[in-house]
Amino acid sequence: MKQKLSALLLLMPLAANADGAVAGSQNINILWVCIAAAMVFFMQAGFALLESGMSRAKNAVNVMMKNYVDVCAGSLIFWLVGFGLMFGSNSSGFFGASHFALTTGTPWDFTVLLFQIMFAATAVTICSGAMAERTRYDAYLVAACVITAFIYPVFGSWAWGGMYGGQGWLAKLGFIDFAGSTVVHSVGAWCALAGIIVLGARTGRFDRNSGQPRTIPGHNLSLVALGGFILWLGWFGFNGGSTLAASADVGLIILNTQLAASAGAIGALLFSKITRRPVLLTATVNGSVAGLVGITAGAASMGPEFAALTGLIAGAISVYGAGWLERRRLDDVVGAIPVHGFAGAWGTLAAGMFVQGNMFDGYQIAVQIIGIFSAFFWAFPTALILFYVLHKLFGLRASTEDEQRGLDYTEHDEIGYPEFHQNVTYHRE
Amino acid sequence: MKQKLSALLLLMPLAANADGAVAGSQNINILWVCIAAAMVFFMQAGFALLESGMSRAKNAVNVMMKNYVDVCAGSLIFWLVGFGLMFGSNSSGFFGASHFALTTGTPWDFTVLLFQIMFAATAVTICSGAMAERTRYDAYLVAACVITAFIYPVFGSWAWGGMYGGQGWLAKLGFIDFAGSTVVHSVGAWCALAGIIVLGARTGRFDRNSGQPRTIPGHNLSLVALGGFILWLGWFGFNGGSTLAASADVGLIILNTQLAASAGAIGALLFSKITRRPVLLTATVNGSVAGLVGITAGAASMGPEFAALTGLIAGAISVYGAGWLERRRLDDVVGAIPVHGFAGAWGTLAAGMFVQGNMFDGYQIAVQIIGIFSAFFWAFPTALILFYVLHKLFGLRASTEDEQRGLDYTEHDEIGYPEFHQNVTYHRE
Amino acid sequence: MKQKLSALLLLMPLAANADGAVAGSQNINILWVCIAAAMVFFMQAGFALLESGMSRAKNAVNVMMKNYVDVCAGSLIFWLVGFGLMFGSNSSGFFGASHFALTTGTPWDFTVLLFQIMFAATAVTICSGAMAERTRYDAYLVAACVITAFIYPVFGSWAWGGMYGGQGWLAKLGFIDFAGSTVVHSVGAWCALAGIIVLGARTGRFDRNSGQPRTIPGHNLSLVALGGFILWLGWFGFNGGSTLAASADVGLIILNTQLAASAGAIGALLFSKITRRPVLLTATVNGSVAGLVGITAGAASMGPEFAALTGLIAGAISVYGAGWLERRRLDDVVGAIPVHGFAGAWGTLAAGMFVQGNMFDGYQIAVQIIGIFSAFFWAFPTALILFYVLHKLFGLRASTEDEQRGLDYTEHDEIGYPEFHQNVTYHRE
Repeated sequence: MKQKLSALLLLMPLAANADGAVAGSQNINILWVCIAAAMVFFMQAGFALLESGMSRAKNAVNVMMKNYVDVCAGSLIFWLVGFGLMFGSNSSGFFGASHFALTTGTPWDFTVLLFQIMFAATAVTICSGAMAERTRYDAYLVAACVITAFIYPVFGSWAWGGMYGGQGWLAKLGFIDFAGSTVVHSVGAWCALAGIIVLGARTGRFDRNSGQPRTIPGHNLSLVALGGFILWLGWFGFNGGSTLAASADVGLIILNTQLAASAGAIGALLFSKITRRPVLLTATVNGSVAGLVGITAGAASMGPEFAALTGLIAGAISVYGAGWLERRRLDDVVGAIPVHGFAGAWGTLAAGMFVQGNMFDGYQIAVQIIGIFSAFFWAFPTALILFYVLHKLFGLRASTEDEQRGLDYTEHDEIGYPEFHQNVTYHRE
Repeated sequence: MKQKLSALLLLMPLAANADGAVAGSQNINILWVCIAAAMVFFMQAGFALLESGMSRAKNAVNVMMKNYVDVCAGSLIFWLVGFGLMFGSNSSGFFGASHFALTTGTPWDFTVLLFQIMFAATAVTICSGAMAERTRYDAYLVAACVITAFIYPVFGSWAWGGMYGGQGWLAKLGFIDFAGSTVVHSVGAWCALAGIIVLGARTGRFDRNSGQPRTIPGHNLSLVALGGFILWLGWFGFNGGSTLAASADVGLIILNTQLAASAGAIGALLFSKITRRPVLLTATVNGSVAGLVGITAGAASMGPEFAALTGLIAGAISVYGAGWLERRRLDDVVGAIPVHGFAGAWGTLAAGMFVQGNMFDGYQIAVQIIGIFSAFFWAFPTALILFYVLHKLFGLRASTEDEQRGLDYTEHDEIGYPEFHQNVTYHRE
Repeated sequence: MKQKLSALLLLMPLAANADGAVAGSQNINILWVCIAAAMVFFMQAGFALLESGMSRAKNAVNVMMKNYVDVCAGSLIFWLVGFGLMFGSNSSGFFGASHFALTTGTPWDFTVLLFQIMFAATAVTICSGAMAERTRYDAYLVAACVITAFIYPVFGSWAWGGMYGGQGWLAKLGFIDFAGSTVVHSVGAWCALAGIIVLGARTGRFDRNSGQPRTIPGHNLSLVALGGFILWLGWFGFNGGSTLAASADVGLIILNTQLAASAGAIGALLFSKITRRPVLLTATVNGSVAGLVGITAGAASMGPEFAALTGLIAGAISVYGAGWLERRRLDDVVGAIPVHGFAGAWGTLAAGMFVQGNMFDGYQIAVQIIGIFSAFFWAFPTALILFYVLHKLFGLRASTEDEQRGLDYTEHDEIGYPEFHQNVTYHRE
């Protein structure tokens, strides 16, 4: 199992054609990847609802605008720049340098580009949730563009790079990250961590005198649950489509995804009970998402029982991690960092430990740890510089007054729910 | 047509391979069933929205938690226990006894397990809607687990049991229930009926003195409509995927599904008009869902004109059935029992009457009636015992005080819409 | 490229079989078209949310009822009448005359019927958004039925008619409208334009004295954004499925769709900025939908760079067009006419200009212009007569009193959000 698993999978459709076994199979690969891409796209709606529901009503338009526009800008920028940097020919192993602004290619090239656009959009959206309710809209969009054009694809080229796969230095070591626990989710989360460090916490999130955390409840938990269901659905495409082939493995991959998501929610519930925390809907939904993030690296290479175990632990980690951040006065509005960062790191480790037929291989585990840390040490400092520069150049953070009035009022010309009476600054204490 | 239609369909993918006609076709079967499984999963979001929208805002978190967690717990329990009981080798015809906690198997085994996990989650979720707004959360979850582990799979083994199909005693008689009008929907509804009998009606639902029903309007009808659209969408996977093969029949099956759903809504509207009931959005959405439930048994074996007829009658039944329950002081919050139970029984009967090439066959109709009644006489008394035992052991019903404050306040540590001014106990009379 | 592109594509699946290249490929065509049909169906939820979110809360049930019931009635009527008129054998080139109420046929016939039902439902739903908040429910439904049964399919037969394709007079000229920028979207929008002319603007939309427009904000912008995401998702099926075959082209088609949608939103944003309009979430979402409408005609025949350009311009047009209508005192609640009509016309023109390998062909552009105008001169006057007759016979417009109380109160027996305190007539000025 020291071979490049993801690279092998990426080559599979071509191999199948070379065999000549199934005329037309390339068309079916294309269809499957397109369907999966559509499902991954829909995750954007899930992220938007999760984030909006966990934010206050006075920022509803701002949250939606950031989520909507980062997909739009991100898609175009990843097409123009990011895809080439990530999947272009990559002799150094550290970045790609072809396939920018792809306008001609095979049907398969276009299909892979489409699928990868959806992945890039996912990575960048993770930031927006953590940084909600106090980030200036324009500055956020600039950051989103830089992450999509540069931070995400460079790391991606290490693990998945080369046309298609196998040329990145992590891939050459044998790093297993099937659909991107680290490549997509942790990278997004480490950028988010840098963002919330530069931003600081929302006004009122921690008591000015005692520093005690105060809960700022989200304005619509029905939207949170719907967002969770949509993310879960989309993940079937995220993991299932990462075969990049109409492979028989899709059945196990999606089964593993389902079990890990279910176990993630249960893990969050049990951990909350055991540690005498309140059992929250938001934590339950986040637990299932953590389970999904956790299984993303190993969905194709572990058995169902280990998928469930990976998810269970990921769910517990998401609850523990949320508390850990809170104790450090870090204000992650939606819990994106524990869910995508911590659970993503755990999932990447688990993918190395629970390889079917090669359990607990020391070399593999070491490679996974290298991958996990290299993601952190690439994405976190780079994003820290990015957000710091934006902060100095444009101002990353809205003024306290704007924050209290709500970003919809100050940054946009619409409000989310103009007809409904609201408590404008509600704090449950 | 006295052969086991569903069993034949279940064997089809293997047969196709045996023919050697299409190399790679098994992969395509797997992809199709996985895509369909994803669509069936999404029905959970539909159920959650429908139920939440028809309940009061003070129970929004409770409704979502029950729907979210019953998928999570149900998926794991069905994997561990239910699947073996339902699809394991079944020499008696009354229950299966292999394939528990499947960890090794063919890609096809994993795929079928995935698809069936989604079906089990559907069956159990039906209860939660009928029993909303006054059921204790912990007790509900225990019930959901027992239904997923035992009540649903045992009946399922009678109709669909054996690896894969043909060994159950109902299957041997020739029972037609293609995708589960009875196996999934009626079984879920009869459990729900037992639940609401044990629970009693919500406080205020029937006048304390006169016994007259009082409408308790749901808090968000936009969510109800969205839930209806999502259920409808998911049903294309529910029925279409039940071929368990990349079959050309999928076109007719989904066409029938579309026509029956449309006719179901129209049936509900017309029946409301004719009987001088108000024409309600909730009844319209429920009518379309009843049409979907109705066509589920016969989607693969009847022509489009009979699909439309089946749906039309199912929609009318859902409106009539809701009134029938109300007159008996049975409080089904979302109308789950008329929609899934009564329309499911009708659909199972219709599937026996309208068989293409074998219309109104007396034997077939008799078998269908046996199937309908055996579902009722298995699921209803078993669930009655289950809920009664839970009632005595843990308390199934929230206290009247808790019910009036709302379960979000008393059972959870979050509320759905903390910023919006609400009438806490609103009754339109 | 003067051949009938859409006709060729329609014939493709049969051709593939004739080749005998891939046994089973017809099944895969069927599966793909069914999956795409499911995605197109889901667009109904997107339209419903977009329209509901942009309307006031007092009309929430009315909006949902119109959207829900027009799918139901439309599906049945298109099956009974419209499909035959549109796709039946068409010797004149002006309407079809077979395949009414299809009850027997090949699996492929049923699949095409299913797909086309979803398209018809899309066309008719466009009207409902423009005409929201002041149209009588019954009269609207009658109009929806006439459009589905007659106006839409007759034009459709000109471009796509004959079993399957190539017999319509526009098709014979070589008109390119791959998935229906004109056939579906513009036709729907020209009907909507007729509708709002007959109806007149909502009370309060234009100042009684000065005639100055006043913004009537929608009640839930979170639903608008969710609706936008759902429409975008569904469009992958709308365009991708219009191959009517498991074609390798699907990759490029969906990539083009993604880029055009993204560029559409960016186009709307940039145009708003440049023309010093406020940057609105509603305009951004509409911009992406305009991008989708724009690429619908040419998604299969242009390169990604032209798809992005087409989308960008379509987005700008949607903003410009909304202002253009407003200046003429035309009240289109959701911006359906600029988005589906103006951007659809532009997209149809773009499809003629940016043909890969045949850029800026004068004949092709002339044919496209003929197609665009023939759609307008068919649909607009016909719909004008329809709405005028309905207005005289039944009354198309609700009374001012009913409009001010809200149609939920006056036309339905439910209200959308009974528990939440609302400003019943809110105008932001």
